[in-house]
Amino acid sequence: MARIVFFTDFGLDGPYVGQMKMAVEAIARDAGTVDLMHDAPRFDPRASSYLLAALAPRFPWNAVCVGVVDPGVGGTRSGVIVAADGRFFVGPGNGLFEIVRRRSKTARMWVLPQNAEAAPSFHGRDIFAPAAARLALGLSPEEIGARLVGPGALVLPDWPDDLAELIYFDHYGNAMTGLRADQIARSARLKVTGTGGDVICDWARTFSAVDPGAPFWYENSNGLVEIAVNSGSARDDLGLSRGAEVEVL
Amino acid sequence: MARIVFFTDFGLDGPYVGQMKMAVEAIARDAGTVDLMHDAPRFDPRASSYLLAALAPRFPWNAVCVGVVDPGVGGTRSGVIVAADGRFFVGPGNGLFEIVRRRSKTARMWVLPQNAEAAPSFHGRDIFAPAAARLALGLSPEEIGARLVGPGALVLPDWPDDLAELIYFDHYGNAMTGLRADQIARSARLKVTGTGGDVICDWARTFSAVDPGAPFWYENSNGLVEIAVNSGSARDDLGLSRGAEVEVL
Amino acid sequence: MARIVFFTDFGLDGPYVGQMKMAVEAIARDAGTVDLMHDAPRFDPRASSYLLAALAPRFPWNAVCVGVVDPGVGGTRSGVIVAADGRFFVGPGNGLFEIVRRRSKTARMWVLPQNAEAAPSFHGRDIFAPAAARLALGLSPEEIGARLVGPGALVLPDWPDDLAELIYFDHYGNAMTGLRADQIARSARLKVTGTGGDVICDWARTFSAVDPGAPFWYENSNGLVEIAVNSGSARDDLGLSRGAEVEVL
Repeated sequence: MARIVFFTDFGLDGPYVGQMKMAVEAIARDAGTVDLMHDAPRFDPRASSYLLAALAPRFPWNAVCVGVVDPGVGGTRSGVIVAADGRFFVGPGNGLFEIVRRRSKTARMWVLPQNAEAAPSFHGRDIFAPAAARLALGLSPEEIGARLVGPGALVLPDWPDDLAELIYFDHYGNAMTGLRADQIARSARLKVTGTGGDVICDWARTFSAVDPGAPFWYENSNGLVEIAVNSGSARDDLGLSRGAEVEVL
Repeated sequence: MARIVFFTDFGLDGPYVGQMKMAVEAIARDAGTVDLMHDAPRFDPRASSYLLAALAPRFPWNAVCVGVVDPGVGGTRSGVIVAADGRFFVGPGNGLFEIVRRRSKTARMWVLPQNAEAAPSFHGRDIFAPAAARLALGLSPEEIGARLVGPGALVLPDWPDDLAELIYFDHYGNAMTGLRADQIARSARLKVTGTGGDVICDWARTFSAVDPGAPFWYENSNGLVEIAVNSGSARDDLGLSRGAEVEVL
Repeated sequence: MARIVFFTDFGLDGPYVGQMKMAVEAIARDAGTVDLMHDAPRFDPRASSYLLAALAPRFPWNAVCVGVVDPGVGGTRSGVIVAADGRFFVGPGNGLFEIVRRRSKTARMWVLPQNAEAAPSFHGRDIFAPAAARLALGLSPEEIGARLVGPGALVLPDWPDDLAELIYFDHYGNAMTGLRADQIARSARLKVTGTGGDVICDWARTFSAVDPGAPFWYENSNGLVEIAVNSGSARDDLGLSRGAEVEVL
């Protein structure tokens, strides 16, 4: 049975993640779930879209991803299913799956039906998780009431193919960008501005290749350009913030 | 096999949650566990009791809940099993299951035997998780050595049926109360006092129905009255604290 | 099938833990994983080694532990497999498994082959998790390409058998030491120095045996000496820091 992969900005606090899992298991007891991340860039479907696209190639080949970064929950945006290279992505139709879609060889999109029973603040539990569970059981999007939309509807926001911004800080304070490392020459220097002023970073293969305390950029384990400080925190040591522009020199 | 649902104030840090799971799996390898929440109101069985009662109706019909909010661990309070409408709740006999019990159609309670081998600071791992695993396997409370107590013993603390206080802040800073929303008229206004002074909240259906930055109250996804700020943090923006009284105007 | 137990300093934020699990499941779909802890003492294999050794005796008898506290990732340290009393430990060869090894009756160690495909910053996902999954399937270390090394190679760092330091603070602010409680007389008093000055702690059986606000030491649920404050936070109330020396008076 397909595996369900969660990618949300819900945090691990509170009952939200557990309730989504119970909603999955009520339908597909043996689906199995993986918490990929619950600290996706909060309220920011754009930054989240680049992060998800970097992570998706490592999902199981038949994964069903429940992606929820959804500041408009309860409003008028539709719920969608995107099929991209054999994997399903279920969540809000706000662009969250746009970069995944754009980098896939084949993509289709369906709009989920409204559900008047759903809690207006928790479509993750009441709409997206049940839809994902049914897809994991092998039902088609049409069989669960979703409506296929044409290729024109697939093209959502007018976002760049790579995002030259800081999109995410991890537990160690490393700063991920929305740039794919294979699009940037190793000889390139990156400029980013923190509270302490401009920082120029040269490339290094990994942390142990630079001195403790030195900033550098490298290709992270998911193929993104990442700014880091050996044995330190790029966020704290350089005063970086999410959304800061990254300039390729 | 029944599913085991964890509701504790242990936090996700440290080895505690993982050790409780290993204790379950040592007895019931295939039970399966769900982390509902590990940030229940800390050291506060009363606030936790209202939160758990709001969440319990969505548990699997035959769930076994391990509930641990237990400031008196190692002292003289007993461990208990409560059966409420077909579900089991295992944990300290300090009132944590009182509101679940009071809202159930049928309830019974058993007292767990003492266990001199148990670590005095970790009954969750050494008493409650093993008891829950055995119940999940289909053993009865009596078969695991628990003693049925009479209806009089079921009535524990003298708490109100709804609690007009802030009981929990989630990841977004939304403030849950111990009030069931179906007990409050939509026309009611709520008053709560933060560090910035009194705040009066009108009802709205959901976040997107109010302006960014505006406070409001709504029925949250678990049926509780919740105070929130659209695109903001009720806790931080209004200076709210757990335990603050909520007045229904 | 053997159970895989994770012990890392990755934190629960970010995609790292989820990606390690997907790496396990790609090889051993039914292995099952337990998150023991992901907040092991960061960048500190020495402190982590004492904590892991205290936790290991409660692992399933045939567990495979993926242990990753690895400030030197991407550098020249080798990856290793340690077999200790029937359990496997897979991770960096930096001493993380030294105390487990030293307290075991039988121990052997293998060096893992290099893997040029592995992301230099994420051996947990690309080397250790796949190796652990194969061991869980029943393959031997040799069958997965690891090379047995002699007894001399097993002796790694010159660390004491017990560490008289604060090694870890839990969610409640309790301060674990690297001292086994069964090595210390109950009549001993402990001295530790915080920002508020020296603190002298007497032994108590558990929290409820002392007054609220009083500091004490006790044997924690994993057999370590732990300094705590009833209904308080030893870390915050006493101003303690990780690495602080503990003196047995």
